[in-house]
Amino acid sequence: MSYFDAASSAPLHPVARQGLQAALDEGWADPSRLYREGRRARLLLDAAREAAAEAVGCRPDELVFTTSGTRALYDGVAGALAGRRRAGRHLVVSAVEHSAVLHSAAAHERAGGTVTEVGVDRGGAVDVPAYAAALRDDTALACLQSANHEVGTRQPVAEVAAACRAAGVPLLVDAAQSLAWGPVAGDWSLLAASAHKWGGPAGVGFLVVRKGVRFAPQGPVDERESGRAAGFENIPAIVAAAAALRAVRAEAAAEEVRLRELTERIRARVPALVPDVQVVGDPVRRLPHLVTFSCLYVDGESLLHELDLAGFSVSSGSSCTSSTLTPSHVLKAMGVLSEGNVRVSLPLGTADADVERFLEVLPDAVARVRAKLGAPPSAAAADGALDELTVDALGERCPHPVIELAKALPRVRVGGTVTVLADDEVAAVDIPAWCWTQGQEYVGAEPRGLGTAYVVRRRA
Amino acid sequence: MSYFDAASSAPLHPVARQGLQAALDEGWADPSRLYREGRRARLLLDAAREAAAEAVGCRPDELVFTTSGTRALYDGVAGALAGRRRAGRHLVVSAVEHSAVLHSAAAHERAGGTVTEVGVDRGGAVDVPAYAAALRDDTALACLQSANHEVGTRQPVAEVAAACRAAGVPLLVDAAQSLAWGPVAGDWSLLAASAHKWGGPAGVGFLVVRKGVRFAPQGPVDERESGRAAGFENIPAIVAAAAALRAVRAEAAAEEVRLRELTERIRARVPALVPDVQVVGDPVRRLPHLVTFSCLYVDGESLLHELDLAGFSVSSGSSCTSSTLTPSHVLKAMGVLSEGNVRVSLPLGTADADVERFLEVLPDAVARVRAKLGAPPSAAAADGALDELTVDALGERCPHPVIELAKALPRVRVGGTVTVLADDEVAAVDIPAWCWTQGQEYVGAEPRGLGTAYVVRRRA
Repeated sequence: MSYFDAASSAPLHPVARQGLQAALDEGWADPSRLYREGRRARLLLDAAREAAAEAVGCRPDELVFTTSGTRALYDGVAGALAGRRRAGRHLVVSAVEHSAVLHSAAAHERAGGTVTEVGVDRGGAVDVPAYAAALRDDTALACLQSANHEVGTRQPVAEVAAACRAAGVPLLVDAAQSLAWGPVAGDWSLLAASAHKWGGPAGVGFLVVRKGVRFAPQGPVDERESGRAAGFENIPAIVAAAAALRAVRAEAAAEEVRLRELTERIRARVPALVPDVQVVGDPVRRLPHLVTFSCLYVDGESLLHELDLAGFSVSSGSSCTSSTLTPSHVLKAMGVLSEGNVRVSLPLGTADADVERFLEVLPDAVARVRAKLGAPPSAAAADGALDELTVDALGERCPHPVIELAKALPRVRVGGTVTVLADDEVAAVDIPAWCWTQGQEYVGAEPRGLGTAYVVRRRA
Repeated sequence: MSYFDAASSAPLHPVARQGLQAALDEGWADPSRLYREGRRARLLLDAAREAAAEAVGCRPDELVFTTSGTRALYDGVAGALAGRRRAGRHLVVSAVEHSAVLHSAAAHERAGGTVTEVGVDRGGAVDVPAYAAALRDDTALACLQSANHEVGTRQPVAEVAAACRAAGVPLLVDAAQSLAWGPVAGDWSLLAASAHKWGGPAGVGFLVVRKGVRFAPQGPVDERESGRAAGFENIPAIVAAAAALRAVRAEAAAEEVRLRELTERIRARVPALVPDVQVVGDPVRRLPHLVTFSCLYVDGESLLHELDLAGFSVSSGSSCTSSTLTPSHVLKAMGVLSEGNVRVSLPLGTADADVERFLEVLPDAVARVRAKLGAPPSAAAADGALDELTVDALGERCPHPVIELAKALPRVRVGGTVTVLADDEVAAVDIPAWCWTQGQEYVGAEPRGLGTAYVVRRRA
């Protein structure tokens, strides 16, 4: 088995396991107690905070341990918004943030706040001037991830932090995906991270609030962790998280080069090995261990199942694999295909041979799914004669509407149009993205009957 | 070293350690993923939920895992209040709840809700008719602990649950201190608990919401744990928590008898071994492993330090040991002495010999602290002649004002009064409690100058 989904959760680092073992013996007591076991627990907690702060690049008293990265984001966003209530109630986020930030933004809106979502380019990055333009006099907080969790694109955090600083707005950076590789550059104000992304245990997040940043913890609070993270401190896991981060950082420089070469190989070879594939995300400004591509005419769930049978664990931003049946908001914001989406994120130490084997099994896995779905052959377009053709894909789910479109288009002449009737909302993302990928013209969409009519003009 | 503070945090149970080890290997992946590692994690999570639900006495789909007992209480209270918003915004709690409940109540008041705190008797228990009388037409939620964390008194949960049911008000039970000993009886609606109290690891709480109870999670939410506990599931710790609860329950019947005998021994012998001691908490309806007493003319921090030197780790509800410098709200609500307070809570397996050694070292430890503080000799009262005496204890902290009172009282005649001037707020609790303990009359208090004048009439 090859586990290629480190961006979801990395296996426990051996150093984390050692740290956890030791701290289970030494760090189970209440660190606020004055007796021996309590003082010992306090020493471990203080040492872990020193180590974590050094890795982040902040003061120890600026960093608290939360119970997850999600909790760090929830509480970081809520506390920073409340601390700046006098400035206003406007929040700026990028459209491709982790769902924990977007859920926080939605909660802020429900509570009467306003939110601006800054869009991204097709590579998944925000544009610095566009981000800066979203900052207003009443902006209380801005949020930007250091790197995207689905496509690996690094965001221009230092530049956005400078723009925020100039506007007097604190910037909260979600560093969950990048902290293993190094500190976050730039003059940010708050930072959140999640230990199980770098081989630490589950149950530990970091929340950093720079000195001087106005911050007012929300909801009920207790005295633990400077009043910023309630509940009994999970010291064994905290010790393991800090130890893992230090260990991973020690390996980062060498592994960054090696894993970047492996992901580069996937980026280059998958489009050659598999027809009708789109590699997504910035090819250069990206995380070293992560690569994402979308396979036309494939549903993500079937492809993941085929790859699982072949011994590979990967994830997908396709709607078909999510419990909510909506496509990835990241791929949607980028305007790229969500169908047949595969994210490969390599854990530290991934062997060259495992990547080679992945490249070996992928073409057949895709071909099997396509055959089952009756996908169009990836041949030169036939020479159609029709002016117009309407295809009924009502009731059919991703990727069928696109498959029907791809089959129909060769039957019309160049300049002719195909209208696809569909009621799967994913079609609204995938049909325009398919057109862009294939060099066809997406004319537009309008409601018709129980669904939507998507019109595409043949250009090639 | 003898660790006698299980009520703060119990050392990790051997079964929890085994469960944690195994699940670190098998349960680190994201349980929402479809690949092998994810399915394996899901199986572990499901099995842990079944085991936990069986121990609680609820359906598995009624129980979610939170990141701490505190989080279970915060989110349980907030979700239940919001779910019953239409009924009203009134919350009932007992005055001796865990601070997490009282902090939640304070947050609810800040947000415009109303709160009734139901008082307790000198044993620490609520009165069922008094609790029932606090329920109103606009009461959205009632909270009651199963047993008190500072004095061990069991609350009449089943009776209060029946009263709540009759009034149509859901009852949330904080079962943190008692769940190790058995399920909570009665027709309660919500329940919260904390794994590190029963030898599970830190980082796991239970939140149970019975089917049919209106519940609306607050703040940003994600899809994990039925939308009731956000953030990546900490499966290794969850597995360990459920395994520890089952293991502890298997030992509970035998250990309950044994530990009850040990704590009974402390209850009976400490007042005989140490002069001027008050054992607090209900002598019968109580947790088996917990006993609390207060030593007059002693400050808690010094006594804990002496006991720590002698090899005993205990905790204290005295103001002197807390970071906030206010005395325990529990002891205050009970109207009992808070000075020189010692809580002994025995972990499973505590040896008889360790308790005997504790009883050996305690009298000297108390005597040393009293000698340092210049406490009055515990002799028969002298025959004073004065009608009135005023003692200036301004600027002096607990337990000095009470020590000054105890020294002054023998100097007035029976029927005469002593006035103590003090500005330590703890005196407002401890001077009346001392009078009650000593059979003297507490006349009253009034502001004077920079402090308060407490008047006591000699009765004996």
